Amino acid sequence: MGRVSSLAIDCHGHFTTEPPEFHAFRKAQIAFAEGRSQEPAYSGIDDDELQRIVAQNQLQVQQERGSDLTILSPRASGMGHHVPGQDIATEWARLSNDTVRRICELFPRNFAAVCQLPQTVDGDLEPVIEELERCVGHGFIGCNLNPDPSGGHWSAPPIYDRWWDPLWETMTRLDVPAMIHVSGSCARALHTTGAHYLAADTAVFMQLIEGDLFERHPALRLIIPHGGGAAPYHWGRYRGLSIMLGKPPLSEHLMHNLFFDTCVYHQAGIDALFTVIDPKNLIFGSELLGAVRAVDPETGHPFDDTKRYIDALGLDDETRHAVFEGNARRVYPRLDALLTAQGR
Amino acid sequence: MGRVSSLAIDCHGHFTTEPPEFHAFRKAQIAFAEGRSQEPAYSGIDDDELQRIVAQNQLQVQQERGSDLTILSPRASGMGHHVPGQDIATEWARLSNDTVRRICELFPRNFAAVCQLPQTVDGDLEPVIEELERCVGHGFIGCNLNPDPSGGHWSAPPIYDRWWDPLWETMTRLDVPAMIHVSGSCARALHTTGAHYLAADTAVFMQLIEGDLFERHPALRLIIPHGGGAAPYHWGRYRGLSIMLGKPPLSEHLMHNLFFDTCVYHQAGIDALFTVIDPKNLIFGSELLGAVRAVDPETGHPFDDTKRYIDALGLDDETRHAVFEGNARRVYPRLDALLTAQGR
Repeated sequence: MGRVSSLAIDCHGHFTTEPPEFHAFRKAQIAFAEGRSQEPAYSGIDDDELQRIVAQNQLQVQQERGSDLTILSPRASGMGHHVPGQDIATEWARLSNDTVRRICELFPRNFAAVCQLPQTVDGDLEPVIEELERCVGHGFIGCNLNPDPSGGHWSAPPIYDRWWDPLWETMTRLDVPAMIHVSGSCARALHTTGAHYLAADTAVFMQLIEGDLFERHPALRLIIPHGGGAAPYHWGRYRGLSIMLGKPPLSEHLMHNLFFDTCVYHQAGIDALFTVIDPKNLIFGSELLGAVRAVDPETGHPFDDTKRYIDALGLDDETRHAVFEGNARRVYPRLDALLTAQGR
Repeated sequence: MGRVSSLAIDCHGHFTTEPPEFHAFRKAQIAFAEGRSQEPAYSGIDDDELQRIVAQNQLQVQQERGSDLTILSPRASGMGHHVPGQDIATEWARLSNDTVRRICELFPRNFAAVCQLPQTVDGDLEPVIEELERCVGHGFIGCNLNPDPSGGHWSAPPIYDRWWDPLWETMTRLDVPAMIHVSGSCARALHTTGAHYLAADTAVFMQLIEGDLFERHPALRLIIPHGGGAAPYHWGRYRGLSIMLGKPPLSEHLMHNLFFDTCVYHQAGIDALFTVIDPKNLIFGSELLGAVRAVDPETGHPFDDTKRYIDALGLDDETRHAVFEGNARRVYPRLDALLTAQGR
C-alpha cells in the first residue's frame, strides 16, 4: 500500500456556529409550533457567509489540531425533538441538514455529513425514514438518532423495542450507522451537556444489554458518543449485569456492532477508555465545536483536543490507524467510498 | 496511637434480603396507596429471623471479604418515593428504617444505620426532616437522599435549589451526611441499577457544579455513590464546564464537602478513580448485597468485592487508612462516636 500515515477522521463534529438569523428562525418556528405566532419564513444563509463561518471555526480548529476530516452534523442540543408537531420537526431537520450538506459541498475534503432526524415525542418513524433516505441521497454517510425525544423524560420505547425496527432496517439497507445522541434537556435538574448527554449514553448502553437488537439486526452499527458515557468506567458492573440477565459476554452481545467515540476530555479518562475497550471499537472524536469550550489551565490546551490525549498513548501503528481512520471507514462505508473517490 | 491496622468500613450496604412477608406488605401497601385494596397490617419479622437472615448474608459476606463494619440502609430501589401519598411514604420509611435499626442493634459491631427518607413527588420536606430526626435519635448516622423522587422524570428541583435548604440545615445541625441515592426507575427505558443509578449520580454532580450549595452550607457533606457515576471518568469535561460557568476549581467548589464511594466493579475502573480523585474524597464501599450479584469469570471473584481492587492498588498506609476508615469517621461523626464508645 505504501501508506505512510493515517488520516485523522473526527467522527463527532457539530455545526454549532450558526449565524444569528438561523437561531432567530428556530425561535420563531417554536413560537409558531406553540401557537404563539405566525409561521416564519427562513431568510437563508448565503454560501459566502457559510464559507466564512466554517473557515474561521470548524476548519481552522481542524487544521490547528492536525485532523483531516470531520463528520459533521447539526447542533445536537438544537435538534429539539420535544417541540410539538411533525411538520415543524421535518422542516427543521431539512433546513438543518441542508445547511450541513452545503458546508460539506463547500469543503468536500474536510467535512462529511451526518443528518438530524425529524423525530418527535410519540411521533412515528415514517417521516424519520423519509428524511434519512433524502439525506443519504444527497451524500450523507450516517445519522444522529435520539433515544429520548422527550428531552429527559424517557418516554420513548427502549431502542431494542421492535417499534424501532423500520428505522434499523432502513439503516441496514442504506448501509449507514447512527450515533445515538440526545438533544437538549427539558428538565431543569438535568444539565444538557453535563448530565443528560452522559446519562443517555449510559442508559442506551444498558438498553442494548437488556435487549437483542444486534442479534436481530446483525449488520447494524451504532456509535455511543462521549466515550460511551459511564460504560467503560463501569465495565465490570455491566459485565456483571449482563451475566445476571443471562446474556452473552459483552464482546459477543454488543461489541461487533457498537462503537464509542473518544470524546473524553482528560488524559486519565482516555487512558481508562483504551485500557478497557478494544481499540477496534473506538473511533476518534472530539465533539467540536461542542460541549466544552475552555482551555485546561493545567495543560494550557483545550479540553476537547482529544487527539493530544490519544497521541500521548503511544499506540502502535496498526491500532493508531484503526482509531484514527480504519474504524471510521469500516463503520461508515459511505465515507470510505467518498474518500476512495478522492484518492485518499 | 499504636494502631497496627485500619478498620475496613464499608459505607454502602443495603438490607436487600428482606423476607417474603416484608415484600408482601409493601405490595399490599402500594395497592392501598393506589386505591386498589384495604390498608394492610404488617405482620413483622421477629428478631430470630432477622438475626438468621443477616448472619447468613450481609454478615457472612462481610466476614468472608475481610471488612469490619457496614453502613447499612434499606434497599434503595425499594424506597419507591414515586408511590402516591405522604402517609404511605412515612409508614414505609419508618418500617424500613426500624428494620435496619434492629439489625444494627443485633450486630452493633458489624453494622451502623443510615435511614431512608419519606420523600414523595411534589411532597414537602417537613415529614422528611421529622423522620431524619427520629432516626438520628435512635442512633442512625446518616441518610439516603433521593434527588429524583419521580423515579426518572427529574421533576424535583435541583439539589442546589433553596427548596431543599431546610433539609440541609437539619443535616448540618444533626451532623449527619447524606448519600445521594435514587430509588427504582419508573421508566422502561431506564434500567434501575444499570442506567438510572449512574445517571442520577452524574446528574447530581453536575447540579453541584451549577449551584452554590456548599458555599451556602459549608458544613454539609454529601456522598455520591457508584464511584461518582460518570464524573471521575469525565473529570476533564466537568473541569471545563465548571470554567465555562465561571465557577471555582472543583477542588475548591465541591471537594471539601463531596465524597465518592468505591462501588466500581473492575480493576481498571478503580485505577481510574484513584488516579483522578484525591483519596481524601474516597470512601470504601461495595453496595452489598446490591446491584450486581455475579462472579467475574475472568477473575473468579465477585464483581462487587471492591476491597480486592483497592488492595491491589498498593496504597501507602496513610492513604489506605483514609479510604478504609479515616474518611468514613470524618464524614460520619456519629459513626466515629459509636466506634470510639466501642474502643475502636
